[in-house]
Amino acid sequence: MAKAMHPRSTVVIEETHPAAADLRLPKVLAALADPARLLAVRALNRVGESPCTRLQQAAGLTISRSTFSHHQRVLREAGVIQVRVRGSQRILSLRRDDLDACFPGLLDAVLGTAPELIET
Amino acid sequence: MAKAMHPRSTVVIEETHPAAADLRLPKVLAALADPARLLAVRALNRVGESPCTRLQQAAGLTISRSTFSHHQRVLREAGVIQVRVRGSQRILSLRRDDLDACFPGLLDAVLGTAPELIET
Repeated sequence: MAKAMHPRSTVVIEETHPAAADLRLPKVLAALADPARLLAVRALNRVGESPCTRLQQAAGLTISRSTFSHHQRVLREAGVIQVRVRGSQRILSLRRDDLDACFPGLLDAVLGTAPELIET
Repeated sequence: MAKAMHPRSTVVIEETHPAAADLRLPKVLAALADPARLLAVRALNRVGESPCTRLQQAAGLTISRSTFSHHQRVLREAGVIQVRVRGSQRILSLRRDDLDACFPGLLDAVLGTAPELIET
């Protein structure tokens, strides 16, 4: 018997992620040029793939859910993170391989910057 | 006889440069998150300290003088470049030492990105 094409456990990747070939430096830099988004990216690197609620907590971001949702969208549309929907959860992960391939050293520089040089 | 404090050949550094200790990652990333400013920074790295008119030419930027002037100001206020006034010329240089000290690897990553990943 043929397997169901879309069993309930399927992880759905949202359609609006740019392909690796479409990543552009100005857009990635603009996505990273915000203290809250930088903290989220650094927390995501630290804790690994995470549901968005856990990530927001790990990043220490006391902002509204809608503001965090906006930041996620900016990071996703620039190609910095991947968002997958699993049931009612949104699972976020860093697109490290794509970023490292397109912009060697950029993510490491951003992750390696001293915390006191991020907050404005 | 005492030397004149400000002989005519003195290179004047404008007052509005942030100190190295005041550089912040979000502001530097925002300054770099623009194709024209990225091209200017990369040209400045290539040709070295330059009068702004020569730099604009080296960067291949066919934009108005006032637009280029705006880009210079954004880069200067973020701490990416230094602007010195010598006679009627504005001499631009990269603040490589300060950037490398604050954000190790960032400038190299930006300078090392393939040109086709800069234009949008």
